[in-house]
Amino acid sequence: MALPETVAAALKSRFGPRFQLARPVREQHAATTTWLAPQPPDAVVFARSTEEVAAVVGLCAREGVPVIPFGTGTSLEGQVNAPRGGVCIDLAQMNRIIAVNAEDMDAVVEPGVTRTQLNTALRDSGLFFPLDPGADASLGGMAATRASGTTAVRYGTMREAVLALEAVMPDGSVIRSGSRARKSAAGYDLARLLIGAEGTLGVITGLTLRLQPVPEAIRATACSFPSVQAACEAVITTLQAAVPVARIELMDAATVAAVRAHSGIDLAPTPLLLVEFHGGPAAVEEAAATFADIAGEAGGQDFRTAATTEERSRLWKARHDVFWAVSALRPGTRAVSTDVCVPVSRLADCIAAAEARARDAGLVAPIAGHVGDGNFHHLILVDPQDAGEIARAEAHIGWLNELAIGMGGTCTGEHGIGQGKRAYLAREAGAALPWMAAIKAALDPRGIMNPGKILPEPTPAVTPAAGGR
Amino acid sequence: MALPETVAAALKSRFGPRFQLARPVREQHAATTTWLAPQPPDAVVFARSTEEVAAVVGLCAREGVPVIPFGTGTSLEGQVNAPRGGVCIDLAQMNRIIAVNAEDMDAVVEPGVTRTQLNTALRDSGLFFPLDPGADASLGGMAATRASGTTAVRYGTMREAVLALEAVMPDGSVIRSGSRARKSAAGYDLARLLIGAEGTLGVITGLTLRLQPVPEAIRATACSFPSVQAACEAVITTLQAAVPVARIELMDAATVAAVRAHSGIDLAPTPLLLVEFHGGPAAVEEAAATFADIAGEAGGQDFRTAATTEERSRLWKARHDVFWAVSALRPGTRAVSTDVCVPVSRLADCIAAAEARARDAGLVAPIAGHVGDGNFHHLILVDPQDAGEIARAEAHIGWLNELAIGMGGTCTGEHGIGQGKRAYLAREAGAALPWMAAIKAALDPRGIMNPGKILPEPTPAVTPAAGGR
Repeated sequence: MALPETVAAALKSRFGPRFQLARPVREQHAATTTWLAPQPPDAVVFARSTEEVAAVVGLCAREGVPVIPFGTGTSLEGQVNAPRGGVCIDLAQMNRIIAVNAEDMDAVVEPGVTRTQLNTALRDSGLFFPLDPGADASLGGMAATRASGTTAVRYGTMREAVLALEAVMPDGSVIRSGSRARKSAAGYDLARLLIGAEGTLGVITGLTLRLQPVPEAIRATACSFPSVQAACEAVITTLQAAVPVARIELMDAATVAAVRAHSGIDLAPTPLLLVEFHGGPAAVEEAAATFADIAGEAGGQDFRTAATTEERSRLWKARHDVFWAVSALRPGTRAVSTDVCVPVSRLADCIAAAEARARDAGLVAPIAGHVGDGNFHHLILVDPQDAGEIARAEAHIGWLNELAIGMGGTCTGEHGIGQGKRAYLAREAGAALPWMAAIKAALDPRGIMNPGKILPEPTPAVTPAAGGR
Repeated sequence: MALPETVAAALKSRFGPRFQLARPVREQHAATTTWLAPQPPDAVVFARSTEEVAAVVGLCAREGVPVIPFGTGTSLEGQVNAPRGGVCIDLAQMNRIIAVNAEDMDAVVEPGVTRTQLNTALRDSGLFFPLDPGADASLGGMAATRASGTTAVRYGTMREAVLALEAVMPDGSVIRSGSRARKSAAGYDLARLLIGAEGTLGVITGLTLRLQPVPEAIRATACSFPSVQAACEAVITTLQAAVPVARIELMDAATVAAVRAHSGIDLAPTPLLLVEFHGGPAAVEEAAATFADIAGEAGGQDFRTAATTEERSRLWKARHDVFWAVSALRPGTRAVSTDVCVPVSRLADCIAAAEARARDAGLVAPIAGHVGDGNFHHLILVDPQDAGEIARAEAHIGWLNELAIGMGGTCTGEHGIGQGKRAYLAREAGAALPWMAAIKAALDPRGIMNPGKILPEPTPAVTPAAGGR
């Protein structure tokens, strides 16, 4: 399905060189980080204002043309692919920080502002934006995918970080949901519905974000464990003891080995916890001591505490380099990252089962995770030329999703559904799926908003008048 | 509109004495705490299981009969009134605690379990459920109204406390949304949509709740201030300094005077902050010291620190008795509690303006609030026989809601919309209102679920193909 002439002409006339049909530009906007084929849009518009986004969506709504919002293209489940063509709206140029309200600890930003850009702007304010999903993603994209990362255990996810948002709805009209108040009981929470909807219900064009005060003291500690089980026991006890951890990250033995080879940090080749404490100096001291007791009790050893900013950066760089360290294990392969999230009590079992099954399937697939939330990433190294290996990886991911759902967990803690996890969402949501579809049909009756994402096709319907039992 | 014979007969046959048509029972289920007239349902069913709720809703769906869910009847904006008659489903007998998962710090409960019942059951677990809206409300009702209370500044509201829920949808089918995992990026967040929907999109029949570890140390401090402005300055600085407060409550001078008269606690008749710290012993010590510095700097004096449980209970009892203390100021009147929530930086102005206008309007209307969230209650003492006073109170509330919305806040931080605040929701939501109505129409096309609540009537419609601008 090609872009209708009238739509192309109208966009060309309004946007000039900010309307692009060139193949390289279209291909840059179809990034996938999986083995899914890139599916470029028919055209890309570089929007600079809410009014421009509204105009594009309004035009596409009248003509039934798909609209795909694009931030930095760092999503992991094919969220920016354009399986039915259409117009990609690149929001990167909507990158103004509109206001920082220090007394209220909030910031009003356009959706193309990245988290690093925001934190750079906040440098002298005594405030920071805590969410850290790894990539330097756009804040609009992070909201659209309900992103989180290493600090969610303390500061929550984008669900909690967004106080209010502005969005262009599927008919091109503009709404605001939420306010600068820190809580509200006023009506249906449309902001929370749009957060995590991956652009399928509207395009997020503005965000009011909750900021956090920079803690007076920060300390990071690394600690090795004889097993994932022992590390997870330490995590559970730490959380139950109300130790105020700001981050608590796990690497399995394979990941530690990769990091060791990649970064030269001398780490025992066994599972590792990397923990950070935020607070007043006495609170941090107390938290670190309590954690050391708990971790030691669970078999933890080889503690390394980083008190200075430099030492801490070195430890966290090792964590952030996991993707590259793991990728280097098998040159020529692509690291496909999948994530699941389970109750913390089931985490050790889930990881052990995943490690064992990956080994049996002949897959190189280290694990690293946000263990305080029960969320982990399985980084599967896949040779893109090897159809058999791709099939084995796909089967392994399917199995892992089923396992996580069966343990009372979810098929994705933070990557979202996109194209890749629609079948698992159907399994997880069960009887709730038709109600999601009913909302989609009500808000976007022509199905133009980021089609082919989240909901499986054909779209399930609520059985009319199912009533009673 | 009376209950159709067929519906009454079917319910009578299934529920026997748990189906009630008696006037006193119906009137007990139409509690309002305002000057709005009680509007009893046509019948009350006392449900004992999700299956029973599903059967009632399914039957009512087929016959187009309204359904009104009922927990403890402690909502404040007419949420349980039955303006079109119909069947009230009393959920109080669904009061089983299904599971407490200590390692995961969660609990699975039926909707009729009250917060006190849950905390009593948790007494020996080292865990507690932190939300405290004042009334011993049912947890289902708290979720339905997105309740919060004194501890939201630290532990969040019901939006954050609910990990998963089960609900009977408007056609009588049962869904589950969320899981026991601590976060998820899987699809539309139906749980968050049902939380705060006040039963207008479905009946909540089960909850999985996030629990918190009982802190090792707790300390409460009261401190008097020369003005609301000075107290609010202390609050802002405390939050900016990342002092880990678990509660930070304000009473204005009128409220303090009422509490003093009612409870005999010797307090200076000036605005008061009541603060609680949770954490390890060193963290609490540090937090209390930092707060004392900040509060002193802002003009705070007459510090009273309660270290023992008894002293602390005495302080918090004074806070919890505010409603009764204030009511006693003018015997024969009814205390009508309205709430708004504004950015913390605007709170002092908002309160000062409200106090001044109430005085000018001849209203006795003390203020107490969850000041860390920018949320406060205006307790207006109204003589139910005095139509002129009722009119003045109503005008004052309307003015206050407009003021809060104009300050970037919301017309309700925690009481919800119900019948009483529909006009203010319309004002606050603006262009978002038709999208809320579209969701309501899609999920509940016959409009049977708690009609006359949240959305103003006539229901606004999305302008079809509004497109572009």
